[in-house]
Amino acid sequence: MKLLRSPKQLNRELRRPCPRPVGFIPTMGGLHEGHLELVRRARRACASVVVSIFVNPLQFGPGEDFKRYPRNLARDARALRAARADVLYAPAEAAFYGPSFQTPVGVGPLSRPLCGKTRPAHFAGVATVVLKLLNQVRPDRLYLGMKDYQQVRVIEQMIADLDLGVKVVRVPTVREKDGLAMSSRNVFLSPAERIQARLLAAALKEGEARVREGWTDVNRIKTQMKKVLRGISGRLDYLEIVDSRSLEPVVKLTQRSSLLIAIAWFFGRARLIDSRLIKA
Amino acid sequence: MKLLRSPKQLNRELRRPCPRPVGFIPTMGGLHEGHLELVRRARRACASVVVSIFVNPLQFGPGEDFKRYPRNLARDARALRAARADVLYAPAEAAFYGPSFQTPVGVGPLSRPLCGKTRPAHFAGVATVVLKLLNQVRPDRLYLGMKDYQQVRVIEQMIADLDLGVKVVRVPTVREKDGLAMSSRNVFLSPAERIQARLLAAALKEGEARVREGWTDVNRIKTQMKKVLRGISGRLDYLEIVDSRSLEPVVKLTQRSSLLIAIAWFFGRARLIDSRLIKA
Repeated sequence: MKLLRSPKQLNRELRRPCPRPVGFIPTMGGLHEGHLELVRRARRACASVVVSIFVNPLQFGPGEDFKRYPRNLARDARALRAARADVLYAPAEAAFYGPSFQTPVGVGPLSRPLCGKTRPAHFAGVATVVLKLLNQVRPDRLYLGMKDYQQVRVIEQMIADLDLGVKVVRVPTVREKDGLAMSSRNVFLSPAERIQARLLAAALKEGEARVREGWTDVNRIKTQMKKVLRGISGRLDYLEIVDSRSLEPVVKLTQRSSLLIAIAWFFGRARLIDSRLIKA
Repeated sequence: MKLLRSPKQLNRELRRPCPRPVGFIPTMGGLHEGHLELVRRARRACASVVVSIFVNPLQFGPGEDFKRYPRNLARDARALRAARADVLYAPAEAAFYGPSFQTPVGVGPLSRPLCGKTRPAHFAGVATVVLKLLNQVRPDRLYLGMKDYQQVRVIEQMIADLDLGVKVVRVPTVREKDGLAMSSRNVFLSPAERIQARLLAAALKEGEARVREGWTDVNRIKTQMKKVLRGISGRLDYLEIVDSRSLEPVVKLTQRSSLLIAIAWFFGRARLIDSRLIKA
């Protein structure tokens, strides 16, 4: 595997005839099984697999965890070598955004609900970094994890809106044995919080069960889900049932709507998110 | 020459092995010698020449001339055929921006002075359409006319900021015999305005002469330029001397600064712009 550290190096590497299709996995490092599953999926389907690690300052708000976000390039590189990635692209921040950078991507309605409420500039930062990475790497396929579902939708919309011609491959969330969605931020949980954190997935499962049973009243389903969460430490950020494409709230469920049940929870040092997609 | 009318058609065309380099000239139609000079420059240097015609609604503000902007595809296509363009790409508006389009490009400091003052959303619209076109056409070189100098700078900055890897070729302004910069909007001038309009270029020439003479006081130079414009109809939008890279105002001229002298003037139905670049 090659480790490349600047857009210039990457460009030189990719200019050589590069076996196609190229599969690309953008990450912020702190790699776990969820990321590695993306790499394995790409490895099976693509001739070249490029992974990026870049903790993108643009997608962190003031007071968020940019500084203490897990960074361990050597450990991540070992994991990627084992998963048979071809290129690890880990640019330095100074080489990535020029000093006069002034062209962020704007994002619209999809960026405003759910995580957008507490993180108003987050998805513009995500879209901007992914756009730059896509332009640098020029992949054929982009592998994205479904845990960050709103991020998937924002990026899919950007790819359509800006004619990027990249195929998005949605990869299901990888979970711990007790159901907790894998996340780089799980390392911030205290042992007690870690035990409780499994209830986020349990609440989502409860919600899905009620939908599948035919319940149509969203508020009743939410109340039922909140019962699962009763008594755990920290606090709820949001619990929403939305249209899976527009992310707009759904009031009355019908058999024809594809839904997303999504939750975000603040533990002490960590804000965790999880969701379940329910197809019509 | 091939005429293509949708992103899909364009994509099909460009997927065939396309002789490289590809030169691209984005236009809004109403073609004049200035545009055709861009095509000829591309023709001399590139194996394929793609021209787009798309009157981009996003770059017109409320009350601006979107509706009456000159549109004559048959005439423009004849001119492009004569100039030996290979592809004319003239997408329909509905095929260009999808109904849920929500990913405009943001532009920063470069978009705010000069034309940005009277046209606050203009350059975001320009950047967005050019980004989409670049992604659709994937050219090697982009030919831009220097008459719209601020537009050139915004696009150059976007290309750098978003890692688009396209080479910008700046092509000098083509002028009428009396010095008036060619513009699609010149057709809006009354005969009397047309005669007076040559004074915009004359004023710029006056300004450049004073700079070359060694004058350092910007206000004194501007006053001198305004004397040339005395008595013409309509009204001044701006007359500025700015740093040619940042477009920030220059107060005291030095031999080391590259300058842009820029003017915008409202005639009855038309707002005309012109500028001169003075390299250090």
